[in-house]
Amino acid sequence: MDQLAIKTLPVPSTVSSELQQAIAAPLRTDILVRPKSVQEWRKIVQEADGQAAQVAQLLWKQLGLAVTPSSIAGVQCFRLVPQPPLALGLEGDRLLVHLHGGAYVFNGGEAATCEAALVAHCSKTSVLSVDYRMPPDHPFPAALDDAVAVWQALVKDHDPAKMALFGTSAGAGLAMAAVLKLKETGTSLPAALYLGTPWVDLTKTGDTFFTNDRVDNILVTYDGLIEAAAMLYAGGRDLNDPLLSPVYGDLHGFPPTILISGTRDLFLSLTVRAHRKLRQAGVPAELHVFEGVSHAQFLTSFPSPESLEALEEVASYFDRHLTR
Amino acid sequence: MDQLAIKTLPVPSTVSSELQQAIAAPLRTDILVRPKSVQEWRKIVQEADGQAAQVAQLLWKQLGLAVTPSSIAGVQCFRLVPQPPLALGLEGDRLLVHLHGGAYVFNGGEAATCEAALVAHCSKTSVLSVDYRMPPDHPFPAALDDAVAVWQALVKDHDPAKMALFGTSAGAGLAMAAVLKLKETGTSLPAALYLGTPWVDLTKTGDTFFTNDRVDNILVTYDGLIEAAAMLYAGGRDLNDPLLSPVYGDLHGFPPTILISGTRDLFLSLTVRAHRKLRQAGVPAELHVFEGVSHAQFLTSFPSPESLEALEEVASYFDRHLTR
Repeated sequence: MDQLAIKTLPVPSTVSSELQQAIAAPLRTDILVRPKSVQEWRKIVQEADGQAAQVAQLLWKQLGLAVTPSSIAGVQCFRLVPQPPLALGLEGDRLLVHLHGGAYVFNGGEAATCEAALVAHCSKTSVLSVDYRMPPDHPFPAALDDAVAVWQALVKDHDPAKMALFGTSAGAGLAMAAVLKLKETGTSLPAALYLGTPWVDLTKTGDTFFTNDRVDNILVTYDGLIEAAAMLYAGGRDLNDPLLSPVYGDLHGFPPTILISGTRDLFLSLTVRAHRKLRQAGVPAELHVFEGVSHAQFLTSFPSPESLEALEEVASYFDRHLTR
Repeated sequence: MDQLAIKTLPVPSTVSSELQQAIAAPLRTDILVRPKSVQEWRKIVQEADGQAAQVAQLLWKQLGLAVTPSSIAGVQCFRLVPQPPLALGLEGDRLLVHLHGGAYVFNGGEAATCEAALVAHCSKTSVLSVDYRMPPDHPFPAALDDAVAVWQALVKDHDPAKMALFGTSAGAGLAMAAVLKLKETGTSLPAALYLGTPWVDLTKTGDTFFTNDRVDNILVTYDGLIEAAAMLYAGGRDLNDPLLSPVYGDLHGFPPTILISGTRDLFLSLTVRAHRKLRQAGVPAELHVFEGVSHAQFLTSFPSPESLEALEEVASYFDRHLTR
């Protein structure tokens, strides 16, 4: 064990002024709270989701997206379709399926669609965002069951060669778990995966849980809300179960995957571990790490130049791997 | 500016036991020294190079490499050729050109060849390692002139489609500077570049100079030998000159590039900045970041599984981009 002296972190000069603003923000303090009861969980989730839903609605409008709720295999979803003139080059009948982040607890309802909106806009492609069930009412495996059921329903009348699966943080962990399950059940897999700073291990395992503790100004630390959310979602199951922590699963046969993280990300280790595990399994997987970026800040700083660049990498990746 | 509390860093459980040993090593203290005179420089360089030359000779023997000194365009070089039976699949007349690391001061003479030996072995390909001139006797641009002169001599009777250029740390910075110069002079470029944790910016610019200060147990900090070496090499020139800090150069038209770093690397920011600059210039560039790895530890921990994996990525990258 090395002991680190107190050090100060200047805001890097190597990023855009928009991203500098995001990096200069103080460490979040709400993330240090561990809710002590179901009532406390409901309260913080309701408050956060209400705010996120407003952000989502604003994005729909700003980005010119037509958003319609729909039910697929009994699961609530949102369909986001870029509208002309902002999407003159709409990518035909391709379909991108989105699993939202939010530590498996947050971002239910319209709040589910923020990242979906950004990806629909930048890739000029329709996105289906899955509003999967979550704890406290529905712990594991409800979210996974929902994600798998939606995918299985969709591939009945969509060409999987024209479909991708994506998500960030918990959404990316859930996407990997869903692919493990789809492999198991012999279902057609997506043509590509995009995993943003994936929560592929619910245990506190990985070097940047320590090196980037209190460096990442969004997640800040594992030892608070994040750990509490992992426990709530797992509902007493072994956190090392590959369907909860898919980095421990067999990744052979996974679709081509693009992964994105940042140098300050608490989940940088999870991202690079997932990248290496995929490469070891012979999967064409490519990694992008953004300077100074904390957890999912390449999304939350939208429309910073760095967020546009990250989303452009995702759009270009889908373009290379999905058929027309 | 955020103030970080004192924190302790456990050795990650997510890496091999061989790499754990390397990560558990205490922070180097010799790297904190700033030599105060040419005599002091000569003393520490002579001592370090003597030790590194012994490591190199051991590697030549262990890896079954035939090593012959040769002079090309008046520059001392070493040719490393894998011998049967360890290199039954020797890659014909491909040639990999190596620029060694060592902060533009260290690793002259036989010490130049350590990384060259590992790459020759893992890629089963002949490597030419350039023992370029260095300060204190020969500051910038001597090293660059030598690298460029050797390349220009080689492409007279070698097919550049069968040639790559590579190096780590200062060697990678020098490789990028050399490509800038080759572009300028209209010389044929390598078919691929491998840049290990490249020193592409001699100024203390980049977020991980701060976040990974005293986290990286090899470089430890910029504020000692590294800064002193940058000054010695630059010899009074502006450190922002793209031929000294090639991340500020025009990277359009660069060859396909593979970059390697680690989550604890003081130069992680330099690596990801170079990766992004290359991508922005439309260059197919791919990034690999290894869990828990400090500066160039993917080489110094050889033969850890992680170092073999990194070298295998390099070998496979060359195989995809060099013609036969």
